[in-house]
Amino acid sequence: MPFLPDGAINDLKDLLGPKGWSTDLDVLAPHNAEARGKFKGQAEIVLFPASTEEVAKAVAICAAHDIAIVPQGGNTGRCGGAVAGSKQVLLNLKRMNAIIEIDERDFTATVEAGAILQTIQEACARHDLLFPLSLGAEGSCQIGGNLATNAGGLNVIRYGNARDLCLGLEVVLPDGSIWNGLSKLRKDNSGYDLRDLFIGAEGTLGIITKATLKLFARPQHVATAWLAVPSPECAIDLLALARRHTGDAIAAFELISGFAHDMSVTYLKGLTRPLATKTDWHVLIELTSSRPDDDLQALLVDLLSNAVEIGLASDATIAQSEKQRANLWAIREGIPEAQGFEGGSIKHDVSVPVSRVPDLLDRGIAAAKALIPGIRPCPFGHVGDGNIHFNFSQPVSMEKSKYLARWESLNRVIHDIVTDLGGSISAEHGIGQLKRDELAHYASDEKMKLLRAIKTAIDPDARFNPGKVV
Amino acid sequence: MPFLPDGAINDLKDLLGPKGWSTDLDVLAPHNAEARGKFKGQAEIVLFPASTEEVAKAVAICAAHDIAIVPQGGNTGRCGGAVAGSKQVLLNLKRMNAIIEIDERDFTATVEAGAILQTIQEACARHDLLFPLSLGAEGSCQIGGNLATNAGGLNVIRYGNARDLCLGLEVVLPDGSIWNGLSKLRKDNSGYDLRDLFIGAEGTLGIITKATLKLFARPQHVATAWLAVPSPECAIDLLALARRHTGDAIAAFELISGFAHDMSVTYLKGLTRPLATKTDWHVLIELTSSRPDDDLQALLVDLLSNAVEIGLASDATIAQSEKQRANLWAIREGIPEAQGFEGGSIKHDVSVPVSRVPDLLDRGIAAAKALIPGIRPCPFGHVGDGNIHFNFSQPVSMEKSKYLARWESLNRVIHDIVTDLGGSISAEHGIGQLKRDELAHYASDEKMKLLRAIKTAIDPDARFNPGKVV
Repeated sequence: MPFLPDGAINDLKDLLGPKGWSTDLDVLAPHNAEARGKFKGQAEIVLFPASTEEVAKAVAICAAHDIAIVPQGGNTGRCGGAVAGSKQVLLNLKRMNAIIEIDERDFTATVEAGAILQTIQEACARHDLLFPLSLGAEGSCQIGGNLATNAGGLNVIRYGNARDLCLGLEVVLPDGSIWNGLSKLRKDNSGYDLRDLFIGAEGTLGIITKATLKLFARPQHVATAWLAVPSPECAIDLLALARRHTGDAIAAFELISGFAHDMSVTYLKGLTRPLATKTDWHVLIELTSSRPDDDLQALLVDLLSNAVEIGLASDATIAQSEKQRANLWAIREGIPEAQGFEGGSIKHDVSVPVSRVPDLLDRGIAAAKALIPGIRPCPFGHVGDGNIHFNFSQPVSMEKSKYLARWESLNRVIHDIVTDLGGSISAEHGIGQLKRDELAHYASDEKMKLLRAIKTAIDPDARFNPGKVV
Repeated sequence: MPFLPDGAINDLKDLLGPKGWSTDLDVLAPHNAEARGKFKGQAEIVLFPASTEEVAKAVAICAAHDIAIVPQGGNTGRCGGAVAGSKQVLLNLKRMNAIIEIDERDFTATVEAGAILQTIQEACARHDLLFPLSLGAEGSCQIGGNLATNAGGLNVIRYGNARDLCLGLEVVLPDGSIWNGLSKLRKDNSGYDLRDLFIGAEGTLGIITKATLKLFARPQHVATAWLAVPSPECAIDLLALARRHTGDAIAAFELISGFAHDMSVTYLKGLTRPLATKTDWHVLIELTSSRPDDDLQALLVDLLSNAVEIGLASDATIAQSEKQRANLWAIREGIPEAQGFEGGSIKHDVSVPVSRVPDLLDRGIAAAKALIPGIRPCPFGHVGDGNIHFNFSQPVSMEKSKYLARWESLNRVIHDIVTDLGGSISAEHGIGQLKRDELAHYASDEKMKLLRAIKTAIDPDARFNPGKVV
């Protein structure tokens, strides 16, 4: 342990006991790794506290020795936000994984921060309740990380982001004190909104140790359709029509480019083309309802006929079985994998106002083609949230590494357009260290000043997750 | 103008022009008044800026002269939050009342802070859209004030508080700079959540000048029922059943005590008792839906039969006409007025977890009766949010003023119980100056330290609304 003072290390080991820490390189390896391999963690010790009190005391020990702490959940983040630098202590929450309570009358779940998202979903389902947060990494990401990054995912259009799904938090502060805001309240106007400040702060203001989550009645019915739409404009109009027509029963509304669709059905095994029609733009729409006798199929048929009649869709099919439904989702979910068969892909996590998605596509595609002739745009994703995964596959004849070397220059071009359209350079993945400079580049001086003032007010010694966000 | 420096006053007058300020006592009077007469404003000048730039420049002038500013909307608040002290400049937003844009594709309205809530509701309705915030003062309150106090109201169970209904803000900061966060984005993880920090800060961190609001499809159908329920416990179970059964189509779920109901139908003109049954507890439930062909009446009949069958309700009636519906709402809405006929009323704006409402009622009523024998509890309100208007009418034979003198001692007893149940001493009205000491009394040291650190970070010279909240 050359970089950390022995006194601190010994105090931490005494506090946490043999299960509560490791300096073993094999144990450290996955915690120092990062999803896309862009960053390499350098922590020499990882802590595994078993309780909020242990977190608080560990933080206090680090504070006394002026050591920085990087909190880590399932380590599935995309922006290097949970990666520690040298001389920093990594604090992983995985041992704090209890589902403390599921309350069927309050429609709440109270959980420790290290609980796996999917475990929470399943525990709620056993009470016939829904925790709607759902995303690719749900089998390994932890709810503390989901909240720290205000995770988005598939059901945002209906239920909101992680922030919208949280009623209360318990948080360990940089001085080792504990803020108990673990509230179940639906209305509470007693002072500034601390909860929403810690949510999305990526561990730079506090370490989330527990959360009370909002639950919903579990859907009893689902209806899913695949449509061919003439243009992204039509998709936006279809969304507005669908919101009105279904009483906001839309659980997902995804736009898929023809190129993305074609790759999925070509390269992935066992998938069936939903429609015979060849089209440049597809929409996947899913309705859900918890009403015991809701006829969502009829509602969807009605919506689709209407849409075809007024020209918002040229063709449509409704899944008639769970197998057909799974096929539609496999096409959508398989796009990133299928893209791999066409070489390198440069990605963006951006959002714009829903109505500006067509502008983003028009301008973004034109600019990308101007920058890299032959580039193949592969947009798809949560158009209902204005959050398109704006991926670009490499030109057919270009060398992959040469193409990927253009990552940042293409990002800059797209981010310029996004910003011009009133959008965000980070829709759902956060800032971490990946986009820290990009945030400072695009944010106004007033915003940066506010962010820094808040960071300094709550973590004056920059002890929590330094070098991330601000 | 003995208390304010001439230089500052002249600069402000030059900046804002003849329509932009007043020192006339008749003009000042309503702005120095306070809804319940508990506080008396002492402002000697009120500013009426016409644009964000004027607000910013006025703030800069005040900053240069070290003068405090109290922002004011419709001045309908209940906690003295918009009342100015002496040597403070009152800044009223009423001239900034434009509905800038209603976007039918983004489901957003962008408005100036001084727009009247009802005007916004009506403008949205003309686009067949719904802005769901709804409360008693909607004819005169301004959206800036609604956001500054995170207003609640009737539809929170379905659509959330003001905070949940806002996508973006423009805010003038204490140094006279402008933070442009007027975003329409549904997903944005680019830094700390500044929006939600200004929402609910009651003008102590910034002056909200514009907002982008979330809209919804306007309901096409409504179904309303009145039920006799055996107990508050049954009301809570009924709510859980209704959430599942209706697919969260509940727009309102109100609990009304027998005493409250009886006063309303006895004292108010033209009201009809909904049910022949005499009962201690009533529930008013309303469903809404924007689906064109939704049969909410059938859904509600089904729910109510189910509820009666399993003993959660003993009797129920569904409004068969708009007139019958209006009668049900008039009983509920008329309670505060009807209470006036029974003498003084001591009120509480408190919330607890939904499941703890029965405990609050049991313990609160027992404690109040022990403190003031003969006191008559009159609880009613938004039980679906855990937010009961916990009113108490005076004992029949007590002198009104003698009863009202017990206001604070009864508050303390109730607030102790609320706090013990994990509740809030301010559910929807905020803190203002009324509950500033109460907040400091009940909040943890960690919370108060965080609130004060944030206030100091953003408004280091305590220039915005001093003496409020923290």
